Parts: sequence; structure tokens; C-alpha cells
Amino acid sequence: MAGVAAGGALGAWARHGLGSWLTALLPSTFPLPTLMINVLGALLLGFVAGYGIERGRLPEAWRLPVTVGFIGSFTTFSTWSVDTVLLLDAGRWPLALANVGISLAVGLAAVWVGRRLAFRWRV
Amino acid sequence: MAGVAAGGALGAWARHGLGSWLTALLPSTFPLPTLMINVLGALLLGFVAGYGIERGRLPEAWRLPVTVGFIGSFTTFSTWSVDTVLLLDAGRWPLALANVGISLAVGLAAVWVGRRLAFRWRV
Repeated sequence: MAGVAAGGALGAWARHGLGSWLTALLPSTFPLPTLMINVLGALLLGFVAGYGIERGRLPEAWRLPVTVGFIGSFTTFSTWSVDTVLLLDAGRWPLALANVGISLAVGLAAVWVGRRLAFRWRV
Repeated sequence: MAGVAAGGALGAWARHGLGSWLTALLPSTFPLPTLMINVLGALLLGFVAGYGIERGRLPEAWRLPVTVGFIGSFTTFSTWSVDTVLLLDAGRWPLALANVGISLAVGLAAVWVGRRLAFRWRV
């Protein structure tokens, strides 16, 4: 549990830092930073699931801290949902739909790419 | 940043603890624990966004640690995406579709309910 908490602290810190940086870089009413972070986390978890766990390259002791802790906390479902509802509330249906559709399509594709890379990785 | 990290540690710890308990309680091939945690986090963030931030009842210093830190880390997009791709990979299309559809529908409804409660709360 301590490893999961430590990974979670790092994951939240990385999400907040990267999110703030992306928000300053790409100011917009569309919640692009959360979308980019969620897709990056999906790619990472797809890779770690394939390379670290299915191929056994990540030592047992690191698995929960990295997957459940760090990557689980790096991505977020709640912010994404609230962002979507706030867009709907503001009458911005196309942006709300885009936020859901793009996150899903690109997020699932990212997991798939991450796992493919994990099995092709020669190291 | 320290508050966000501390909130993130607690959020990951709560997700892992509650997830393990729910997995033991409701063993299934369907990733119900992550779905329940994501919906609960969406409800919580909807409430905190309305009550704590829009109504101003959560002191400024607590906002990022609670929202970005704790609730952001309590929910997860990456695990949800990987679970969905693993179901697709195993040929379990109906379960994968259900995981996406139910999470979205119930998650967005939960945000809406959380915000409604936040504005009706008399305290």
C-alpha cells in the first residue's frame, strides 16, 4: 500500500504539472490537456501491461506502484466527466461530444499501440 | 504541489483499497470495481465542483489537493481503457461495450447529480 500511495503522489504531481504547463501553452475552452494526459497514460499503461506484466519484465514489487499507483493516478476519469458536463451545461454540445469521442477512440487506440510496442520490443 | 501530491497519495490508496475489497466481494470478468470507483469519483467531483468551488464553500487552499489531487487520483482513465482493450482482445465485445457505455452514461449522470445536490444543499 505504501508503494501505491507513493506512486499515486508522483502520478498526481505529474498530471498537475503537465496539465498546468499544457493549459498555459494551449489556452482553449476545450479541455485538451486532460485529453492528452489520459491518452498518454493509456499508451503507457498499455505498454507496461504488455512489457512489464504479460512479458514479466517489470519486477513484481514495482507492478502495483507503477500501474495502480503512478499511471492510475496520472490519468483521471472524474475531471474528464466534469469537464464534459460543464461543456454540456454551457450548451457546447459539439465540444462535449468531441471530448468524449476523441478520448475514447484515441485512448483505446493508444492502449492497443502500447501493447503492440510491448510485444515487439526486442530488449 | 505538495498538497496535490498528498491528495494523490490518498486517492491512489483509497482506489487501491476499495478496488481490492470490491474485487474480493464481487469476483467477475467484468471490471465492475473500476466502474464503481469512477462513478463514485464523478459524483464526488460534481459535488465538490458545485459546493466547494462554484458556491465557494471549500477554502481556496484545499481546492487543488482535494479536486486535482485526491479525486483526480481516486478515479482512473488508463485502467478503464486497458480493461476495455483486454475485453476486446478476448473477444468479449458485449462486455467491452458495456464497460464503455455504462461508465459514460452513469459517470456523466453522477456528475450531474453531484452538482444538483451541491446547489440544493442548505448548509
